[in-house]
Amino acid sequence: MSHLTPAEKEAVLASIDHTFLRPEGGPAEIDRLCAEAAEHRFGAVCVQPLWVARAAARLRGTGVRVVAVVGFPHGANTAEVKAAEARRAVADGADELDMVIAFGALRAGLDALVEEEIRAVVAAGVPVKCILETAALDEAAMDRACDLAERGGARYVKTSTGFGPGGATVEAVRRLRARVGHRLGVKASGGIRTLADLLALREAGADRFGTSHGVAIARELEAAAR
Amino acid sequence: MSHLTPAEKEAVLASIDHTFLRPEGGPAEIDRLCAEAAEHRFGAVCVQPLWVARAAARLRGTGVRVVAVVGFPHGANTAEVKAAEARRAVADGADELDMVIAFGALRAGLDALVEEEIRAVVAAGVPVKCILETAALDEAAMDRACDLAERGGARYVKTSTGFGPGGATVEAVRRLRARVGHRLGVKASGGIRTLADLLALREAGADRFGTSHGVAIARELEAAAR
Repeated sequence: MSHLTPAEKEAVLASIDHTFLRPEGGPAEIDRLCAEAAEHRFGAVCVQPLWVARAAARLRGTGVRVVAVVGFPHGANTAEVKAAEARRAVADGADELDMVIAFGALRAGLDALVEEEIRAVVAAGVPVKCILETAALDEAAMDRACDLAERGGARYVKTSTGFGPGGATVEAVRRLRARVGHRLGVKASGGIRTLADLLALREAGADRFGTSHGVAIARELEAAAR
Repeated sequence: MSHLTPAEKEAVLASIDHTFLRPEGGPAEIDRLCAEAAEHRFGAVCVQPLWVARAAARLRGTGVRVVAVVGFPHGANTAEVKAAEARRAVADGADELDMVIAFGALRAGLDALVEEEIRAVVAAGVPVKCILETAALDEAAMDRACDLAERGGARYVKTSTGFGPGGATVEAVRRLRARVGHRLGVKASGGIRTLADLLALREAGADRFGTSHGVAIARELEAAAR
């Protein structure tokens, strides 16, 4: 990885949302996640709503942010409930929210419903990423989703939940970046296991990365720096 | 299926929750589900929160009930948000609620948290089934979950989301039935594709069935009745 400068290596670490979303997990997994994030200077952890307060307490003073998922992973609940979940997560200490849009509604052309729910979550007052579940969308639907995210006030579009029909692909990331330009960020997530995976998606236009393999990737970066 | 009397066949149909929970679905899938449920006299449909109002409107006057899932499919959000989702589903026309318990918390021994969230959902005022995601639990955890469901005021325990590590098994249904006796019902869900699947789970102690293959099962019953 000699083509990454030390500053770039730091930037890669800071662009990783160290993620634990498996529903069978509990406090022990959250505590380990937070300790790893602080140790490797990842930008954030990404956790389920139930564990936001715990993660926030563990990470106080470390500079690592807490990202809470909302409507995860199906996105098939109402705007009102997503908004309530968002407010509660912020009250519990979430610095950012990664909401799953109602991609079933989007596929059916109910764009106004999707824009409304994005606004409702954005109203919670912290930066919002819209998870599109790109593997369930055709290219036209991805474009519409990007436009709705922008109009609704989101800061990022994000490819995948990691529990859907597929993860982040170079093609999907390129498509999202082409649509949002530099007005929004693009978070790649789902199936990122190695530094090479991450760098390929970065090259395609992603500037934030959700992965549960952050520690292995950090070790690859460290080894490359020797 | 000559061992089922006509009355038993009607009872089997009435014990089926005709289910569509795939997140990529939209209004067209919900409308078809409702039409099929009315045609085959299934007891209920089971849908995501986003589609409860639509299903309730479609089913008015048919006698088919609407079941809404809550905290689906991960169960990893807070009691407060599950309660808000439950209230909204009831306001939208849900007759029953199938809530996913925080099975990650249960595995970690946080039983009080789980009992509390069950109470919070039961407070919405309609019958509640607790989805345990049995494939993620050992036998002792299944027993604790049954006890918490009963203490929390739920009416049923239910095996699976259909999106977890496994579906309903004869062994899990037997375990749940042995624990709850006749005080609660047992709903089997996940992987029920044929009448033989359903009858094996019924024999093991289940008295309610969640399946997206209800139409095929109804046809098997009709063929057997000729």
